[in-house]
Amino acid sequence: MQRFINDPDNVVDDTVRGFVKAHRDLVRLSETNRRVVVSTHAPKNGRVGVVTGGGSGHEPAFIGYTGKGLVDAVAVGELFSSPTAKSFHDAIKEASGGAGVVCLYGNYAGDNMNVKMAQKLASKDGIEVAVVVANDDVCSAPPEEREKRRGVAGEIFMWKIGGAKANEGASLEEVRATAQKAIDNCRSIGVGLGPCTLPAVGHPNFQIEAGTMEVGIGHHGEPGIRVEPLKTATEVARDMAKIVLDDHALAAGTEVAVLVSGLGATPLNELYILNDTIEAEITGRGLTVYRTYVGNYFTSLEMVGATLTVLALDDELKRLLDAEARAPGFQG
Amino acid sequence: MQRFINDPDNVVDDTVRGFVKAHRDLVRLSETNRRVVVSTHAPKNGRVGVVTGGGSGHEPAFIGYTGKGLVDAVAVGELFSSPTAKSFHDAIKEASGGAGVVCLYGNYAGDNMNVKMAQKLASKDGIEVAVVVANDDVCSAPPEEREKRRGVAGEIFMWKIGGAKANEGASLEEVRATAQKAIDNCRSIGVGLGPCTLPAVGHPNFQIEAGTMEVGIGHHGEPGIRVEPLKTATEVARDMAKIVLDDHALAAGTEVAVLVSGLGATPLNELYILNDTIEAEITGRGLTVYRTYVGNYFTSLEMVGATLTVLALDDELKRLLDAEARAPGFQG
Repeated sequence: MQRFINDPDNVVDDTVRGFVKAHRDLVRLSETNRRVVVSTHAPKNGRVGVVTGGGSGHEPAFIGYTGKGLVDAVAVGELFSSPTAKSFHDAIKEASGGAGVVCLYGNYAGDNMNVKMAQKLASKDGIEVAVVVANDDVCSAPPEEREKRRGVAGEIFMWKIGGAKANEGASLEEVRATAQKAIDNCRSIGVGLGPCTLPAVGHPNFQIEAGTMEVGIGHHGEPGIRVEPLKTATEVARDMAKIVLDDHALAAGTEVAVLVSGLGATPLNELYILNDTIEAEITGRGLTVYRTYVGNYFTSLEMVGATLTVLALDDELKRLLDAEARAPGFQG
Repeated sequence: MQRFINDPDNVVDDTVRGFVKAHRDLVRLSETNRRVVVSTHAPKNGRVGVVTGGGSGHEPAFIGYTGKGLVDAVAVGELFSSPTAKSFHDAIKEASGGAGVVCLYGNYAGDNMNVKMAQKLASKDGIEVAVVVANDDVCSAPPEEREKRRGVAGEIFMWKIGGAKANEGASLEEVRATAQKAIDNCRSIGVGLGPCTLPAVGHPNFQIEAGTMEVGIGHHGEPGIRVEPLKTATEVARDMAKIVLDDHALAAGTEVAVLVSGLGATPLNELYILNDTIEAEITGRGLTVYRTYVGNYFTSLEMVGATLTVLALDDELKRLLDAEARAPGFQG
């Protein structure tokens, strides 16, 4: 393992400590829970708080989206593991400004369980918690079972739009409904070219043979819909766009936001190569690209690969996407 | 090679095309040279233009720093190769607003030669070009031969500060002098844990044995000062900080900006682990960290490793560092 780590069991604590030092103008550690990162712009009173959380190893997700106009508090899990119910609960308390808290997270069994428990605990504190569960990964279940799909990079749009709505002073129900609309309007797909290794394990927990790629891979190496010979970037991008857009079925003329994210070890230039074809495929279907994001927005340690997310926009979503945000992993 | 590419000989064109599509609000391709990227905020008249350029494969450097309050035009080279003199010349013409152009680039033989030729060509056009040559890589030559040192991630601070100074309406000589001060105040070091592969070559042009690391490695795999067994992140970060700060020899109380950049395939969380110790080492010497940047700011394809840059600040540099900038690879 060619990695910059200390004790493999301390990777998350070491990461969070270095993260808070780097971005102390935007974030702080909770005083009561070292697995909760809090925005320096978290609501003191009167506006809805926004919480997320998830396993570590996806940086800048989740902690990097803590900041102004984005997420108020993040529950931090071990590498690729859900945060505890206590951490979600503590994050909710940190984000609470008296107007309720919305918890915007991804559809994974551990997170579902722990958020539910945290919601009950917060209820006893008198904090009303609404939830939105991201399920944008089109390859993780068929369309008729959308509720089983996993949440992937579409969560970034959910956080951005939910955070902006909360920042406008909307009610808990309004923030929940708008974040729900954002994720309902998202479809994502991942393609993996190489695995990643949890430091405490020391070897990859899945394999991708050289010369092949896994279409539809999940953020933790969950199997995709097929393994096939590695194609050219143009062909891969066409496949990714086709799978996402076939599932999305958007009317011609729809404006979309596009997010091409690396999974950790793919050079940025290759994401741009993918985007060249992705944009052509999108506009070829009569859609208009309103805004494009390319970079390492939601990673999986040093996995080689990329994800594509397409968000269908309306006037409200455009306004909220464009609203000012300032977080370590997202500015704009 | 597990890569998202088409024809290996077209990697740069494919990249630039996808890049311009993604960020058309901020950049455009030159109409006369497909290897020149131009800011949509390039000067129309009256202010100094800012140009850089270099080999591709370092994204977001160099093209990602084209934008508002940053670089006005970038000459784009082949992977790890200097742009041509013609491309530098065309970039200078694109950035010219009648008040002269400053070319802020890194100390490599090909770039030096081609910038010099471009400068002569621009002179015939009546465009005065001042140059600043970055040489922040402390391990590439001893202190008594600083002029031989290579330019690495400190270039980002040079661009940011030079771009902000030009944006304030300063004269060509003022912009040059301030960008020169920025790079003079920078020291950088790289540590490599794994090599990278040029697609057209198909295999790494240097090796890093598993279990070892190369201290002082350059952005193209240039040899460092020593190869040694891979240490813990804390030990690596201490070594990086010691080498940079011993060379820098800053007075206690100096404020610094810190940039920890990944080289392409190192997970972001590991950069934060390094930063945890780097900050402790810096403050342990009586210096104050004014601002920290952590991420993939200047990469080398899929090289595994990280660089540390320390910039000594004064009031002018702080103001220029904090000035608004908006580019695909840098916002803030």
